[in-house]
Amino acid sequence: MERRNIQVLLANRPQGWVQESDFRFIETTLPPLRDGEVLVKHLYLSLDPYMRGTMNEAKSYARKVELGQVMRGGTIGVVEATRHPDFQENDLVLGYFGWQQYSIFNGQDAVLGRNVRKISPKDGIAPSVYLGALGMPGVAAWIGLLSIGQPKAGETVVVSAASGAVGSVVGQLAKIRGCRVVGVAGGKTKCDYVINELGFDSCVDYKAGHLVEDLARATPEGVDIYFENVGGEILETVSQRLNPFARIPLCGLISQYNETFPQGFHNFGVLLTLRVKIQGFNVQDANTNQWEEALNELEQLLLTRKLKYRESIVDGIEQAPKAFIGMLKGKNFGKQLVKLA
Amino acid sequence: MERRNIQVLLANRPQGWVQESDFRFIETTLPPLRDGEVLVKHLYLSLDPYMRGTMNEAKSYARKVELGQVMRGGTIGVVEATRHPDFQENDLVLGYFGWQQYSIFNGQDAVLGRNVRKISPKDGIAPSVYLGALGMPGVAAWIGLLSIGQPKAGETVVVSAASGAVGSVVGQLAKIRGCRVVGVAGGKTKCDYVINELGFDSCVDYKAGHLVEDLARATPEGVDIYFENVGGEILETVSQRLNPFARIPLCGLISQYNETFPQGFHNFGVLLTLRVKIQGFNVQDANTNQWEEALNELEQLLLTRKLKYRESIVDGIEQAPKAFIGMLKGKNFGKQLVKLA
Repeated sequence: MERRNIQVLLANRPQGWVQESDFRFIETTLPPLRDGEVLVKHLYLSLDPYMRGTMNEAKSYARKVELGQVMRGGTIGVVEATRHPDFQENDLVLGYFGWQQYSIFNGQDAVLGRNVRKISPKDGIAPSVYLGALGMPGVAAWIGLLSIGQPKAGETVVVSAASGAVGSVVGQLAKIRGCRVVGVAGGKTKCDYVINELGFDSCVDYKAGHLVEDLARATPEGVDIYFENVGGEILETVSQRLNPFARIPLCGLISQYNETFPQGFHNFGVLLTLRVKIQGFNVQDANTNQWEEALNELEQLLLTRKLKYRESIVDGIEQAPKAFIGMLKGKNFGKQLVKLA
Repeated sequence: MERRNIQVLLANRPQGWVQESDFRFIETTLPPLRDGEVLVKHLYLSLDPYMRGTMNEAKSYARKVELGQVMRGGTIGVVEATRHPDFQENDLVLGYFGWQQYSIFNGQDAVLGRNVRKISPKDGIAPSVYLGALGMPGVAAWIGLLSIGQPKAGETVVVSAASGAVGSVVGQLAKIRGCRVVGVAGGKTKCDYVINELGFDSCVDYKAGHLVEDLARATPEGVDIYFENVGGEILETVSQRLNPFARIPLCGLISQYNETFPQGFHNFGVLLTLRVKIQGFNVQDANTNQWEEALNELEQLLLTRKLKYRESIVDGIEQAPKAFIGMLKGKNFGKQLVKLA
């Protein structure tokens, strides 16, 4: 049976803002499976801010994608054909299989646990969640908050992009650990969700026009941990509220990824005067034990309905570039996914 | 016996560069000792970059000095009169007694170890060294390099202000731990000293006009630890050489202290892309165990001639303001001291 596969390639390295024309679609025919190979039909593609870095020539924590190559990205899919004994039809498989409808991988890679994982979904956990709260973004939240942030009960935690895939988990984990949690998000709808659904103590709408005053009101005892996803003006403003010995897990700088001249960190001196730690991290650098510990806690919380999440889903691979650009502009609400099948 | 005491007061809070007119001298008469008090004649006053922060209105890790008050500063002195049983005449006493010739303290404070310490100098260690390599700067070097930097043999360590009181110790401690050590200093004389006397592998003269190229040549395998004393252009340049997972102990930002608009950190995004840790610290926050461990190692190294240091000494308290301003401009060579008696 011949299968057609639509793929999204990197067509241009963007200067400044990504445009839809930086991507190119092609349709290919999948070759027949060789011994040891597994064919996966993708159900969902994850869209994540780090992907912007893979489009650049410059080095990034995310290895760059070459021009003309398939855009890299996490997917969850279902095995449609298999010539490897460890995989059966209908198995759920998580992997970095890229912006395409199908992929073929060597089963040996999965056995070794490298970038491919077989998923046995628990009751009530939808496959897409393994790309969000129970996937890379959830683990990023867990590792950044707990390993780098080291929250103590009673401390104030601020998290930017608070309604997003990472931020929403950060805040809920911090609440569970007894912290006062303040989100920063764009617009009243997101802020209402962050407070009413996710249970944060407060949420500051950075689009409302009085970030300095609103943040000061929301953090009467200063800020002990700032989980950073965005950079730019929000970083500058939160940095004015830091307490001595504050910790800043640096997970993302989404406001800067499309800037030709990123604005850096003007209030940098505060790191010295207040003895602040800031540490960039990437969930892919975490070791297996950390991943397991994180996934165990996140799964327990999901199964007991103590961890909430929200998804923005667009339908069809043709929508991926537009949805990706929208996400970089904050138009998504929760984890951004592309439904592929 | 009536004693006259010349004191240096903070007269103005400087805007931008400190000037000699920001200080004011007064001469007072020391009151008679009360029960429990100890009179110390200061031998040396330490001049340190952190003092610039104490002159500002804004909060700093260094608590500000009020206008009209004696400038704060570390001193080593000799007991000239005592009404406390734990102190005898001629005892050496280290304390934050400020920019003045004499001080009187309550012996109880010293017994409790708060800011006052009785020193029993070891063979061949001059009293002034307790303000430098075997004092606050030496401990700052030790804690920043070891606790925050966590050097491993074979790694490359870069340290700015390399011939200074802190930088010189950082580099020598890193060499002992098997690192490749590169200094950054101003001028050929300092660089020659850093290589030939302190034993660094290399030293880049930031005044020579080709910092980018010289630093690249000196760090062929990139930079794993950057011990930061200066900030500004040197920080930007070194940040271009960082390896993944680099650590930046942030000890000082001397190039920025007199700037009305500090320049911040433009290349801040590198912290994310390379998963770098940067941590501001202040030696005063370290616990007693760390101080003891640091001082033990530093003393051993000094006694066995494995740790070298250099002092810039001016004579007389009248010279303190000028020497302080000179130090902020990098005119000192090694630990800056004022000889008071």
